Amino acid sequence: MGNRQIYFFGPGNSDGNSKMKDLLGGKGANLAEMASIGLPVPAGFTISTEVCNYFYENNGKYPEGLKEELEEKLSMIENAMEASFGDSDNPLLLSVRSGARVSMPGMMDTVLNLGLNPKTVEGLAAKSGNERFAYDSYRRFIQMYGDVVLEIAPEKREDPDPFEEILGRKKKKVNARQDIDLETGDLKEIIKEYKQMIRKRTGVDFPDDPHEQLWKAIGAVFNSWNNERAKTYRRLNGIPHEWGTAVNIQSMVFGNLDDNSGTGVAFTRDPATGKNVFYGEYLLKAQGEDVVAGIRTPQPINREQAGGKDLRSLEEEMPEIYGQLVGVRDRLEEHYSDMQDLEFTIQDGNLWILQTRTGKRTGFAAIKIAIDMVREGMISKEEAILRIDPEQMNQFLRPVFDPSQKKKAIKEGRLLATGINAGPGAATGRVVFHAEDAEIQAAKGEEVILVRIETSPEDIRGMSASSGILTSAGGATSHAALVARQMGKVCVVGANGLDIDYRDRSIEAGGITVGEGDFISIDGNTGEVFTGSIETDPSEVLQVLIEGKLDKDQSEIYRYYEELISWANEIRKLGVRANADRPNQASVAVSFGAEGIGLCRTEHMFFEDDRIDSVREMILSADEEGRRRALAKLLPMQRDDFKGIFEAMDAMPVTIRTLDPPLHEFLPHETKDIKALAKGMGIPVEDLEKKIDSLRETNPMLGHRGCRLGIVYPEITEMQVRAIFEAVCELAGKGKDPRPEIMIPLIGSAREFVLQKEIVMDIAEKVQNETGQQVDFTVGTMIEIPRAALTADKIAESAKFFSFGTNDLTQTTFGLSRDDAGKFLVDYLRLGIWPSDPFQKLDQEGVGALIKIAVEKGRGSRPDLKVGICGEHGGEPSSIGFCRQNGFDYVSCSPFRVPVAIVAAAQAELNERKK
Amino acid sequence: MGNRQIYFFGPGNSDGNSKMKDLLGGKGANLAEMASIGLPVPAGFTISTEVCNYFYENNGKYPEGLKEELEEKLSMIENAMEASFGDSDNPLLLSVRSGARVSMPGMMDTVLNLGLNPKTVEGLAAKSGNERFAYDSYRRFIQMYGDVVLEIAPEKREDPDPFEEILGRKKKKVNARQDIDLETGDLKEIIKEYKQMIRKRTGVDFPDDPHEQLWKAIGAVFNSWNNERAKTYRRLNGIPHEWGTAVNIQSMVFGNLDDNSGTGVAFTRDPATGKNVFYGEYLLKAQGEDVVAGIRTPQPINREQAGGKDLRSLEEEMPEIYGQLVGVRDRLEEHYSDMQDLEFTIQDGNLWILQTRTGKRTGFAAIKIAIDMVREGMISKEEAILRIDPEQMNQFLRPVFDPSQKKKAIKEGRLLATGINAGPGAATGRVVFHAEDAEIQAAKGEEVILVRIETSPEDIRGMSASSGILTSAGGATSHAALVARQMGKVCVVGANGLDIDYRDRSIEAGGITVGEGDFISIDGNTGEVFTGSIETDPSEVLQVLIEGKLDKDQSEIYRYYEELISWANEIRKLGVRANADRPNQASVAVSFGAEGIGLCRTEHMFFEDDRIDSVREMILSADEEGRRRALAKLLPMQRDDFKGIFEAMDAMPVTIRTLDPPLHEFLPHETKDIKALAKGMGIPVEDLEKKIDSLRETNPMLGHRGCRLGIVYPEITEMQVRAIFEAVCELAGKGKDPRPEIMIPLIGSAREFVLQKEIVMDIAEKVQNETGQQVDFTVGTMIEIPRAALTADKIAESAKFFSFGTNDLTQTTFGLSRDDAGKFLVDYLRLGIWPSDPFQKLDQEGVGALIKIAVEKGRGSRPDLKVGICGEHGGEPSSIGFCRQNGFDYVSCSPFRVPVAIVAAAQAELNERKK
Repeated sequence: MGNRQIYFFGPGNSDGNSKMKDLLGGKGANLAEMASIGLPVPAGFTISTEVCNYFYENNGKYPEGLKEELEEKLSMIENAMEASFGDSDNPLLLSVRSGARVSMPGMMDTVLNLGLNPKTVEGLAAKSGNERFAYDSYRRFIQMYGDVVLEIAPEKREDPDPFEEILGRKKKKVNARQDIDLETGDLKEIIKEYKQMIRKRTGVDFPDDPHEQLWKAIGAVFNSWNNERAKTYRRLNGIPHEWGTAVNIQSMVFGNLDDNSGTGVAFTRDPATGKNVFYGEYLLKAQGEDVVAGIRTPQPINREQAGGKDLRSLEEEMPEIYGQLVGVRDRLEEHYSDMQDLEFTIQDGNLWILQTRTGKRTGFAAIKIAIDMVREGMISKEEAILRIDPEQMNQFLRPVFDPSQKKKAIKEGRLLATGINAGPGAATGRVVFHAEDAEIQAAKGEEVILVRIETSPEDIRGMSASSGILTSAGGATSHAALVARQMGKVCVVGANGLDIDYRDRSIEAGGITVGEGDFISIDGNTGEVFTGSIETDPSEVLQVLIEGKLDKDQSEIYRYYEELISWANEIRKLGVRANADRPNQASVAVSFGAEGIGLCRTEHMFFEDDRIDSVREMILSADEEGRRRALAKLLPMQRDDFKGIFEAMDAMPVTIRTLDPPLHEFLPHETKDIKALAKGMGIPVEDLEKKIDSLRETNPMLGHRGCRLGIVYPEITEMQVRAIFEAVCELAGKGKDPRPEIMIPLIGSAREFVLQKEIVMDIAEKVQNETGQQVDFTVGTMIEIPRAALTADKIAESAKFFSFGTNDLTQTTFGLSRDDAGKFLVDYLRLGIWPSDPFQKLDQEGVGALIKIAVEKGRGSRPDLKVGICGEHGGEPSSIGFCRQNGFDYVSCSPFRVPVAIVAAAQAELNERKK
Repeated sequence: MGNRQIYFFGPGNSDGNSKMKDLLGGKGANLAEMASIGLPVPAGFTISTEVCNYFYENNGKYPEGLKEELEEKLSMIENAMEASFGDSDNPLLLSVRSGARVSMPGMMDTVLNLGLNPKTVEGLAAKSGNERFAYDSYRRFIQMYGDVVLEIAPEKREDPDPFEEILGRKKKKVNARQDIDLETGDLKEIIKEYKQMIRKRTGVDFPDDPHEQLWKAIGAVFNSWNNERAKTYRRLNGIPHEWGTAVNIQSMVFGNLDDNSGTGVAFTRDPATGKNVFYGEYLLKAQGEDVVAGIRTPQPINREQAGGKDLRSLEEEMPEIYGQLVGVRDRLEEHYSDMQDLEFTIQDGNLWILQTRTGKRTGFAAIKIAIDMVREGMISKEEAILRIDPEQMNQFLRPVFDPSQKKKAIKEGRLLATGINAGPGAATGRVVFHAEDAEIQAAKGEEVILVRIETSPEDIRGMSASSGILTSAGGATSHAALVARQMGKVCVVGANGLDIDYRDRSIEAGGITVGEGDFISIDGNTGEVFTGSIETDPSEVLQVLIEGKLDKDQSEIYRYYEELISWANEIRKLGVRANADRPNQASVAVSFGAEGIGLCRTEHMFFEDDRIDSVREMILSADEEGRRRALAKLLPMQRDDFKGIFEAMDAMPVTIRTLDPPLHEFLPHETKDIKALAKGMGIPVEDLEKKIDSLRETNPMLGHRGCRLGIVYPEITEMQVRAIFEAVCELAGKGKDPRPEIMIPLIGSAREFVLQKEIVMDIAEKVQNETGQQVDFTVGTMIEIPRAALTADKIAESAKFFSFGTNDLTQTTFGLSRDDAGKFLVDYLRLGIWPSDPFQKLDQEGVGALIKIAVEKGRGSRPDLKVGICGEHGGEPSSIGFCRQNGFDYVSCSPFRVPVAIVAAAQAELNERKK
């Protein structure tokens, strides 16, 4: 432990600053920073993350001296705020909040209004001159403390919250529409019922001692670091469990004190669109949680946002306070050079700032803000690149609804409601009402829309599994909106026209009922909700680049995209290629900036209707002669396929992999298809069935595939290589510049490679002699089974390049079938056995160790060995970082991941420079 | 190249000796040695293996100076033998033979009688006074040279050999029963026809120039090093291709000169039984190849062998020569301290020794000879151990026919014929007539007996695939007998009562016809051949050790076995354990000398009739509660299983692996079984089918198995661990000393192990508390997937032992399913991609690299980590050597491999000492 365990902040006197996030958490560091730069921050202090770690390492005990230090800092708050903790005349009330290094919204616990008891509540009433306010605060405090510290929860999933049940019953009884309609007497009765219920459920009285309240609340916050939802959140977001949380204890200020009070949250720029406008919401006579929880629909902070709606903005309601708030906004952006998310409270006409942090934003907003800030001279291009999550590039490519289809849906009366556009893109899927159901359905391959009144942190996994999220309550800063924005999900919130009934599992709106399993469609750009499914249209970027429907001048979005890609291209050194099997895919990849093809799978061509017959004839031939006859028919087709690809990729490298999948994949498995094929081939069904049976494999992943086919049937490799070189020589003869790289799959022994390479060299020479064309080419291999990595030195003696097939390498290194892992993947992630799905993020520890061995051994034999990756990981940012660290020449990914890979490659480069 | 390329040997003047096998090959080195120690060796010289390698590296060119050196040595032969090469009055004739470092019988080419032409043949006739002999020699020379150098062969597999065709036609015409019945005139006509046929097929005349003959023959021998059958032989026997062959050129001596001449082969001891008797065969008026080729049935060299048969032995025929031969035998055994295989020729009453080499022998003979030689004071125990191929220990355990069954078969008239007992043991299987068919049928899992008139080197792969080998021609030194002895195959040769017809694919004998696919049974101990199959009885060793049917005093064989095992146990340091799942298997293993159980698979117990229902109930339960109910029923059964095993293994370690196979392996797959199960469970068939379908996996090898089961269903691990500890504590309470080692399978991440170990520790503590017994135990893991090896340092932080599951580790390292590899294994071996089947011999380069990483990393974290192996390789000698080299503590193999492992472990130790 360091000496200091608790860090004070308050007007002109902060122990910490914004650089101390590791120790103070993000919130604590920023509170200290804000106090330092003169913003109006209620005094408080932060118990450091080191105390949290001590707490966990010592079975919930606190380090020595903490109590004394806390007492000392508490009296500093009392001095700053001119009130006394536990004093029955002039009571100081405190908030107790978590605060990790990075924000984990809603994941951990908070207690507000701490310090109230039957005596201090009277003091608060007297001091504020507002008895209702004091008892309302006390009611809220008991409820929150009961939930967080005493852990009082519904006994069954279907049951209502016990506090909400008492509150709801009372509201009904006195005919109160909203909480605010309850009178002091009602509140006192509610408090009494709360206390009775607590005594009944816990066996002890609700504590009156403010110090007991404080220490128990601190313990609850520390404990909440390890609750299930926080652990899930950390896993999903790659946050180490060892970081721990700080605890922020701060003087309460009251947005619910009187008509001159309120509370709100704001972003210094629009977090959905990235527009440089001040954006936020507030509620009069409310505490902060009311805005975020979405119980009352909040009002906009300025006229611009209010639009035509019947809502009074803060700008109109309290112009002076609004002016101060704009000043705070400017000061924060200037100070932090980034878009900030802030919380404020107005108490009796005074503005207090309770929190600032880097604001979450949509992918597009992130990019727009970063680029705008470069244009505004606030940050460098490099800084802009580093601020973007490369995954956000996906959002440029998100579909939107086909306008004519949408118009038609509206005409047909299928527009069910309109809510707030909280996550861009268009999504269509089946309705589910519970997060668990979303997970289950998604695991089955269903596209689902999770529909909730509002979401809560327990729903995270289900949100992650859904194609879209729709809520009927809550605003643009509600939990659903925040999380969806972060996950890059299509999201509509606050569609309060919807009546959602969890018990009936149905939605009603304007007489239309939508049941569980029915299709709905949501537009995250406009907030519209439709019944049924609606066809989607490609994004603007795709319309410019691929569809040619838009000119780049017509699309501001496209111009942002283009600028960003050009900066990333300036920075990165890692090459970016695409995995593409057909000429049109190759063209798309080039449009996105791919610099070559890293994987062209020849077998996909085999499935085309006019080819599969010859392929099957080849497979079912009794002998080599028969196979050669069938292959001869395939040759001209394969040659034409390759010609198309080489034309699309002129002067760029094209890595063509020889046949990889087991032959049985090309044969029919349904009885009727088998019958049809037997008839077509003029052979008895039984003979065909016998042949198909003889090709069946116990573990096809580990069976007769890859180069093992070319070894046993060299005539297949011969045909494919001939097709490639005939295409290449023909194009070369026409002045084109085809650049083939022949790649042999599933090599496990150097000799396998040597034997297949001999065929390539032999056929290449023959075709060159036949055509009189001389062409450059290389022959290399995939490294996709551990033995290849372990004997890479020998393989590299004859292979000119390695391309890591990390899908198969992950399967073999883990002994894990991608097709079967689903059954236990969820448990493995839940239990923290795997930090993430190893098929999504490269397992740097295990698979990465083999890759390092292979690169080192390979370059040991052949220093200029070209090294790339063509597994799915080639488009995943953290895996791309790994590739850069290990000296790869390029990554190759699916065409639509190319923009992600370009930005990730630039980030990887900047991260390398930092070292 | 060294200076000397050619090494002379002859009476009292040898350039080489028996230590120079690398350079001179085995034959050449021994000829030089024999000449040195005064044995009568015809003069000759050896062209070294270095010349062979030069020849291959320089496209068939010879090194400079070779020609001159050859001329010089040739004149030394001429001086020693008092004859001149190419001289028409007193011609020297030569033999040209291959000679590799180790013997490769029949694999490479030989030319005899070289130097004959129309002039020298007349000189030979005059000199020998035997015109018929001279022309017979010339006929043989042309035929052999035509075959070997001119490569004249049948055009189709079914065709007769063109030389044999001419010869046969002539014999028919003149009514000659044997070659010896042909007269000089016949021979001259045959020679003419041979030459015409050669001219027709090659377009050139048969060469008359002796020097041209000599150089072409040398080239042919060098080329024969790389013919297909030689390559196959080297692959099967692990002989490096780089060794090359020497060429031995030696003065001819003639066993076919006159009635006072002959030729023979002999073993200094009986190669089949190991008995210390001089054992051999000879033919009068014959050349060496006649004995080996089995064309004429040879005669025994002494009375003892002749037995009651109507054959005159050499001892009777030429007592003086026989006496000299016995002297040679004594001199050779004294000089080489090992059983020798020698070739001799008697020319006109003079004995010549043409070759000596270490004699091939049966497994049992090898052991008996080695032990006898220790007893005779000729060699040390260590030397004896090193002389044995550990695989030969298997022969002690070979079955014999059940005597009553055999008696019954004889009574039923099923004794078809009796031949020579050439490979011990008893075999029963279906008849095949071609080596290819043997391979094909064996690949399908059929036991086959390969039936041939005689075998040839082309048949090796088929012989290897057969359960037994039966020939109608040839003797105890024929190709079939030699190869079978070496491979350890059951073999009967020379059963000349059988009339084998390849075209009809049938055997006839005494009116009985046996067709292809019919069962026959052969007794390799007695030479008997039966129709139909006969039940077998365990070996004498098993009858002493396991069955208790014999007392050790009654079995000399057992006493040899016991002595050898005791020597091996004195020497070895590597522990030997067994893989055993049931108490009776454990007892067998202990009888063989196992020092513990290295792998007890708990799942095999699950298949017992009374358990499988509960297992299925557990698998098909909808929830944890249902699973726990079913597991509770299994608990007492598993506990009893473990009790039995711990009792059998008292005070020895027992490594128990928790459940490993995917759950679907326990469910029925046939429709009728599914129906029966559904009925038994009282659920609809469709529901059961759906559940079975949901458990089906694409790649079960890489699916939900191993510790992945215990992670998802911890209750399974809990039950198994409880069963173990309840058994252990109960036995400990009775004063027994059970020593459990709990092994978690298929670990890929350290955290998987930690989570499963927590369960083990928790349950172990509970059961110990419940029973009041304190027991010692350890928890460790299998290392069977690459990721475990790569992260072994982290796993070893909590695992106390590693046991390499090399079956699965081979599958994952190669990306190769053992169940599917059969489809291309043959091609992979043929093409030299794999030196041997990696599931039989550990792949030291690839899989071995991972094992080294794992041991190094594991012992880095935990220096006293116990390391073992429990894959099939744990019983394979070369793999055991690898384990010893890498510091393993023990190997574990199937109970019947324990004797092999014990001897291999002793050898491994002796090999380590040599370093």
